[in-house]
Amino acid sequence: MALAGPVLETTADSMTPRSVGTVETKEFVFAEHPHELKLDCGKSLGPITLAYETYGQLNEARTNAVLVEHAFSGDAHAAGIHKEDGRAGWWDFMIGPKKAIDTDKYFVICANVIGGCKGSTGPSSINPKTGKPYALDFPLVTIPDMVRAQKQLIDHLGISKLLTVIGGSMGGMKALQWGALYPEMVRSIIPIATTLKHFPQQIAFDEVGRQAVMADPAWNGGHYYGQAKPEKGLAVARMIGHITYMSDQAMEEKFSRRMKDEKMGFKFSADFEVEGYLKSRGENFVKRFDANSYLYLTKAMDYFDVSGEKLLPKGKDLDFKFLVIAFKSDWLYPSYQSQEIIRQCRLRHVEATYCEINSRWGHDAFLVDNPEQEHLVKHFLGRLKR
Amino acid sequence: MALAGPVLETTADSMTPRSVGTVETKEFVFAEHPHELKLDCGKSLGPITLAYETYGQLNEARTNAVLVEHAFSGDAHAAGIHKEDGRAGWWDFMIGPKKAIDTDKYFVICANVIGGCKGSTGPSSINPKTGKPYALDFPLVTIPDMVRAQKQLIDHLGISKLLTVIGGSMGGMKALQWGALYPEMVRSIIPIATTLKHFPQQIAFDEVGRQAVMADPAWNGGHYYGQAKPEKGLAVARMIGHITYMSDQAMEEKFSRRMKDEKMGFKFSADFEVEGYLKSRGENFVKRFDANSYLYLTKAMDYFDVSGEKLLPKGKDLDFKFLVIAFKSDWLYPSYQSQEIIRQCRLRHVEATYCEINSRWGHDAFLVDNPEQEHLVKHFLGRLKR
Repeated sequence: MALAGPVLETTADSMTPRSVGTVETKEFVFAEHPHELKLDCGKSLGPITLAYETYGQLNEARTNAVLVEHAFSGDAHAAGIHKEDGRAGWWDFMIGPKKAIDTDKYFVICANVIGGCKGSTGPSSINPKTGKPYALDFPLVTIPDMVRAQKQLIDHLGISKLLTVIGGSMGGMKALQWGALYPEMVRSIIPIATTLKHFPQQIAFDEVGRQAVMADPAWNGGHYYGQAKPEKGLAVARMIGHITYMSDQAMEEKFSRRMKDEKMGFKFSADFEVEGYLKSRGENFVKRFDANSYLYLTKAMDYFDVSGEKLLPKGKDLDFKFLVIAFKSDWLYPSYQSQEIIRQCRLRHVEATYCEINSRWGHDAFLVDNPEQEHLVKHFLGRLKR
Repeated sequence: MALAGPVLETTADSMTPRSVGTVETKEFVFAEHPHELKLDCGKSLGPITLAYETYGQLNEARTNAVLVEHAFSGDAHAAGIHKEDGRAGWWDFMIGPKKAIDTDKYFVICANVIGGCKGSTGPSSINPKTGKPYALDFPLVTIPDMVRAQKQLIDHLGISKLLTVIGGSMGGMKALQWGALYPEMVRSIIPIATTLKHFPQQIAFDEVGRQAVMADPAWNGGHYYGQAKPEKGLAVARMIGHITYMSDQAMEEKFSRRMKDEKMGFKFSADFEVEGYLKSRGENFVKRFDANSYLYLTKAMDYFDVSGEKLLPKGKDLDFKFLVIAFKSDWLYPSYQSQEIIRQCRLRHVEATYCEINSRWGHDAFLVDNPEQEHLVKHFLGRLKR
């Protein structure tokens, strides 16, 4: 099956000559006793490891730092070729010398979220109090908690003001949350394909995914580490998610009603190409993602809410600039939700540029090489006075 | 939780004075050896029971018969109050004296599909060859097979031409299929919120639902009759389906981000109202629907295809009239798919009326009392010369 569409799992082959080259993931450990991170749920977490990568050089004035925020299933490896497995970063087409986020000019940071399973502390990490994985003893973390953890990394790197925070989907939520929590540390925000809050349809899709995971007997109340994992439940959850990441139109272009064996099989094994594709995406995901992290991160998104005055409080002198990008065929985070960010900016006289890109790739469009997105980001960053 | 929205499971309370009154479901048995029904998959099925109801009187000329087609999880009980359990029919607001489908004028028939679990022969029926439920030995049936079975009932009732065949969603597919298979038996077709074929996104949602059912160990390859049922898997499948039946806007109106306990619970049990609602819909569905029928009926819809010349072949004198109804907020069967029916009609100079109703209830809008839908159907039927 030839896929003309978005290739989300890029490989070394896709690396352009303008790559940042070979990179490795670093670790920042903090919140050690008695300085645990206080979380929104009231509990504390520590010690915390943040997995992160950096590309380019921090200038002397420390004014050229760009914080890139990954989406739900992303990680710290945003650009270049990973030293260990040769994988290209998930936004390699956006980050590198002369690219939209130009590493000749900017110091780029990408950190994996807490609650995840890509090197930062999450439910699959060892709980120092028990010597076993946290599982559901891991406290429920929110998007603000993730950003509070990142702030410690940014402090550690000696950066007092970020030139921009940029990200798509859940990455966009974190970018917005930076503005709500630390307005004095952010010069601009680039939320892409995202929203000021999760709406009930988004919560509903997440909840069905969680129910699929928890319906799998292998999930076992979250205690599956070291034994059979809830692979079937997690695969179903991912399949649901994957449908919401694609547009109706992209699916029609890629699969239409083509059959794997050229005719109806009159059986329940996948006979349409789209079925086989979804199944394989579900099965691949299971290999690289922790089922409990699926629960924690989706819940964090569902709790996300910087609507109304939470992002741009009245009576404060706000010195942000926004570039808000949406995609026409994105029905998971429809463009009216991006326009609401703009509306809030207008109400507070905050400078904001909006662009709805005419892509047919649905929500995942921000992960697909796209000249318009690159152009918008490159020139927005270029116009910010350093 | 007060629900202002569509109430799909109506009760006796909702019965209007213009009801058809108390009704009972009848059975028609046919395809007995050696006259089994030949199916698209190449296998034969028999004997077959069709559960059906009728309302109103067939006129002497036998020209006033309206065949009502139910949707995926529907049944033969379309109108009136059921004798056994007091339930109101699923389209009671549409069918009755002086209603859109006026039982003072028309003889209304509604039959449950084969492959289902509402009285007609399906995977949970006893296989006469083994004395046990068919389970996955039940042959895969298609929408054309369902219509072929119905045709025998219509013959049995002594009707050679139906005034109209009307239905929403899967019911609309069966209505269209009647035109494709038996054009000489149908004077008009009213497909509502439906499509000429399943597109890949629709197939994808169905496939995820099937995967959810089959991922449940209790499914046991379809052999769960008389023991624990795959309730969790089927509930997840239904939750997915239910999201696709509602619009983003309807969910926002009904639930917004309201919490069940007025604040975030920081736990994975449902704390948003929309989560609790979906969960209860999933759990209710499990009580009234067979998991194997879920597999068979969704597969039948995925195979459905009367696009291009399959519905309206060239070189045939076609004497149909169409009334095609779509709903603006229906994103599962978006209006462009209904417009494609109209386009095909125009190409063949077949008389067709199209109306896109401005409802906010999403795909399920056709199941919700709606004056525009009622008006359209009533006047379309009134203008057909009997």
